[in-house]
Amino acid sequence: MPDYKAPLRDMRFLIDNVFDFHGHYAALGATDATPDMVSAILEEGAKFCENVLAPLNRSGDEEGCHFDNGVVTTPKGFKEAFAQYVDGGWHGVAADPAYGGQGLPPSLGLVLSEMIGSSNTSWGMYPGLTHGAMTAIHAHGTDEQKATYLNKLTAGEWTGTMCLTEAHCGTDLGLIKTRAVPQADGSYAVTGSKIFISAGEHDMSANIIHLVLAKLPDAPAGTKGISLFIVPKFHADSGERNAVHCGSIEHKMGIKGSATCVLNFDGARGFLIGEANKGLNCMFTMMNHARLGTGMQGLCNGEASFQGAIKYANDRLQMRSLTGAKAPDKAADPIIVHPDVRRMLLTMKAFNEGNRALTYFTAQLLDTAHLSHDADQRQAAEDLLAFLTPICKAFMTETGLEVTNHGMQVFGGHGYIREWGMEQLARDARIAPIYEGTNGIQALDLLGRKVLGSQGKLLRGFTRIVHKFCAAHAEHPQLKAHVEQLDQLNQQWGELTMKVGMAAMKNPDEVGAAAVDYLMYSGYIILAYLWLRMAIAAQAQDDIEFAKAKLGTCDFYFKRLLPRTTGHRAAVEAGSECLMSLSAQAFALE
Amino acid sequence: MPDYKAPLRDMRFLIDNVFDFHGHYAALGATDATPDMVSAILEEGAKFCENVLAPLNRSGDEEGCHFDNGVVTTPKGFKEAFAQYVDGGWHGVAADPAYGGQGLPPSLGLVLSEMIGSSNTSWGMYPGLTHGAMTAIHAHGTDEQKATYLNKLTAGEWTGTMCLTEAHCGTDLGLIKTRAVPQADGSYAVTGSKIFISAGEHDMSANIIHLVLAKLPDAPAGTKGISLFIVPKFHADSGERNAVHCGSIEHKMGIKGSATCVLNFDGARGFLIGEANKGLNCMFTMMNHARLGTGMQGLCNGEASFQGAIKYANDRLQMRSLTGAKAPDKAADPIIVHPDVRRMLLTMKAFNEGNRALTYFTAQLLDTAHLSHDADQRQAAEDLLAFLTPICKAFMTETGLEVTNHGMQVFGGHGYIREWGMEQLARDARIAPIYEGTNGIQALDLLGRKVLGSQGKLLRGFTRIVHKFCAAHAEHPQLKAHVEQLDQLNQQWGELTMKVGMAAMKNPDEVGAAAVDYLMYSGYIILAYLWLRMAIAAQAQDDIEFAKAKLGTCDFYFKRLLPRTTGHRAAVEAGSECLMSLSAQAFALE
Repeated sequence: MPDYKAPLRDMRFLIDNVFDFHGHYAALGATDATPDMVSAILEEGAKFCENVLAPLNRSGDEEGCHFDNGVVTTPKGFKEAFAQYVDGGWHGVAADPAYGGQGLPPSLGLVLSEMIGSSNTSWGMYPGLTHGAMTAIHAHGTDEQKATYLNKLTAGEWTGTMCLTEAHCGTDLGLIKTRAVPQADGSYAVTGSKIFISAGEHDMSANIIHLVLAKLPDAPAGTKGISLFIVPKFHADSGERNAVHCGSIEHKMGIKGSATCVLNFDGARGFLIGEANKGLNCMFTMMNHARLGTGMQGLCNGEASFQGAIKYANDRLQMRSLTGAKAPDKAADPIIVHPDVRRMLLTMKAFNEGNRALTYFTAQLLDTAHLSHDADQRQAAEDLLAFLTPICKAFMTETGLEVTNHGMQVFGGHGYIREWGMEQLARDARIAPIYEGTNGIQALDLLGRKVLGSQGKLLRGFTRIVHKFCAAHAEHPQLKAHVEQLDQLNQQWGELTMKVGMAAMKNPDEVGAAAVDYLMYSGYIILAYLWLRMAIAAQAQDDIEFAKAKLGTCDFYFKRLLPRTTGHRAAVEAGSECLMSLSAQAFALE
Repeated sequence: MPDYKAPLRDMRFLIDNVFDFHGHYAALGATDATPDMVSAILEEGAKFCENVLAPLNRSGDEEGCHFDNGVVTTPKGFKEAFAQYVDGGWHGVAADPAYGGQGLPPSLGLVLSEMIGSSNTSWGMYPGLTHGAMTAIHAHGTDEQKATYLNKLTAGEWTGTMCLTEAHCGTDLGLIKTRAVPQADGSYAVTGSKIFISAGEHDMSANIIHLVLAKLPDAPAGTKGISLFIVPKFHADSGERNAVHCGSIEHKMGIKGSATCVLNFDGARGFLIGEANKGLNCMFTMMNHARLGTGMQGLCNGEASFQGAIKYANDRLQMRSLTGAKAPDKAADPIIVHPDVRRMLLTMKAFNEGNRALTYFTAQLLDTAHLSHDADQRQAAEDLLAFLTPICKAFMTETGLEVTNHGMQVFGGHGYIREWGMEQLARDARIAPIYEGTNGIQALDLLGRKVLGSQGKLLRGFTRIVHKFCAAHAEHPQLKAHVEQLDQLNQQWGELTMKVGMAAMKNPDEVGAAAVDYLMYSGYIILAYLWLRMAIAAQAQDDIEFAKAKLGTCDFYFKRLLPRTTGHRAAVEAGSECLMSLSAQAFALE
């Protein structure tokens, strides 16, 4: 396994030089998030992830989770690491102080999450799901429900899950069959079977609080008849075991240390949370949070893969540089001298650092949406968040998968061997484009719901930022050409959207036909904007070597990755006809 | 696991309608390859692969190979399947009748290989490696060596390997340390350790014939001092056990049924094959063959993945079509109604069928190079083969990996679960861009050695064919626009090559910087040519549904995949500076 070292230099650069987290926190009145506190979280968080979580990553993959008659055991060391994490106070960093949290801004929670996910993606699922459940209970629970569950969840004594999927439906939740029947005492008897429940059963906490989508007996059909229920494994009051049991765990391609459970509810006692039949809305509170977290998985696995690849590329001696030996005293040159190895490494670096910038940019919006006292500012942040969330989820996981594949390729044959740990990262990364709403669903959400659904307003909220930025830097001595390229793409983005919107009015399939390429196209432009912001901020600080690296990588991004927008644009413009003309039978004629 | 059904309809279309295999065989005097014989191979080969190999694919992945104190056991059923394969006469289909083969043209061997690789990639490695060894012995062995080894290898009583890689060198074979010391009896004592040896040790055959690269004591340094040796596990004459032993097997991401061995040679008795110090040339005979086979792996895993995905997309009910319910009697529409699912399926279909056409096109060249009595024709075929081989290997494996990833994505969460078999295909497919020369090495071979090394001659050999084709079809009523697009790209291809060539004269790093994008760019154009050939041939035959499917997929390819050339061209034109400007340290500053 590549040793994980938290990329603190790059994180600090974003925090201090690009996004001015300190000014941002001060403006929001987040007085606890002092520079010292930020530093402490970075440094101590890094130590925990490097020393405790990273060493369990490969062993967790090899061992996987065990299932024995309803009991799930996590890989060796996972449980102890969770105890250390909880003892260290990490679990409540960004949680509400009213329930025992530290009350730091959400962005600091995300900074920590990157380190956790990079060092051990599977392990990170357990606290990750718990944070999702906490968010939903915090937003929709009654005061009593909050008091009952949030303290224990924040303290990490209990953990949480989100139970949506059933065997016959994942995307199409309107089809769920799980039923909740009202009981005399105000509770509900929940019956049904859920699949793909991450952290659904395990040995890391004393209790597990399931958030379960189910239908009331008189519920309207479809998504408007779904309600959300709290179903604890052990009841909070009596400590009695509830009728929810793990039927089996899945055998998966990766994230093997994460228990993916079938959960059977047999008249389990549950409690309605939020309004009846509004369960999907409540769940979305959790899912938006989760989608950012899932997007980050692309960054996490990508970062870990880059760290392995860069080390190997400097160590591995193979062939001579075409421009003459660079290490004449050695048997061959380190492979980092070869342009194609550099192409792979720079692609990894450009996506990782770009995706990290996107994460931090979005994390600040999350802070503002949560903490600002100005309603207009909150709304503006919410709008940008709504626009960026599907892009974060899909673009970052798609490029994260590409990055982990480059990482394997840099290793040659050794990249395919488990021992080196590079292939695990590619396997772990492969789930992220699928779960929390497939990337196809994210793309529909972006183009259909967010962009066209707002008549372009949410897009314009972002392109205006980019346009202003380009205007401000149009005469930049070194970056003028890139600024101009971005400005043009930014304008083209609006035009392309208009074109798709017009076509979609005549034929709704145009949205589905364009969506994924539109999302990727958008992601590349957003990263271009962020890369220019990084380049400019890098020039303005004192570390010359660091500035050169940022400028060089920015240049690489503009010259070698951004041109992929052309292919995506052409695919968007191709329209739906070439997708819809074949009959279902014609795909595979015999 | 998706059930495998050999895509006989598409194969027959290529054989009968696109490439006129019958005319081609007749012209080469391959009188045994009658239409009846071709049909029998297709049908009986399909049965064997569908009924014997496919059922062992997932179990082989789950079980893997076993290593116990030097003894390697293959997964349950592998050995019996090999016996059935040998008994059925499949192993010698394209082998020399002088040594017990059936003497059919190489192209028929490749047609069969696709079915084998699609139904069970891991299993296919054992006969595949043996064919490689047979090719090398046939081309470079003495009459005595041929008599000693080829009969048994052809009969499948013995199997073969190719032993190149050592722990410190894979690409850079000039660094190998294995030594061969001449003995009084004319044999050599071979000592050294080889890694990543597929089929290096197993229980499927009575004997294993290793072809081993090693250095003679007085050998010049580097690749000009490498010789090739035959090192049998058991000596052919005495039956005595040789001093070659398996030290361990690798734990890999995929192709788990294929034993990947560390082989230790401890003064093993070996025999020089071919000229001393020309071992790399001999090995390349084997490797060109192997590279075509490896390229096909992309097609094989892609085809299996497509078969799973198309079935699932027709079965799985989820959401309604945006243009209104298509299966109003069901709870939801089958997901094949959704444009984005179709985008994935059509991408899979377009690459698979395009890659199959590329395989058949190349296979015919292989026939001509082997069987033609006309030296000019042979040379022309050799030139085209030299040009196409790296493209087949790299483009087909790269797109094959993409295809298997789409296949997983179509399945949503189920795609990540081992039980469904879709993730195995993505894991199995991941090795193909790495082994038999990484795709980066293929790209250097294409651009540096083949294209620029021939001053563009090998490229022009192909662009001339495309240009002629475009001229002949410039006025095609339905395909005119695509023909024009191809003709323009074909011309641009030459211009781009010239540009890179000029830059490379000043700076050799320009070749490495451009190579992979140049190869992918080339692959997309070649597939466009083949898709037009297929579209035109489909129109000329009677099956109207089939013609519509081919034309629709061709249209999809031109509109949604071919535009990716733009991004690759931009990357090629970006040049090497943005890759080489960063110092090795600057990639990861702390």
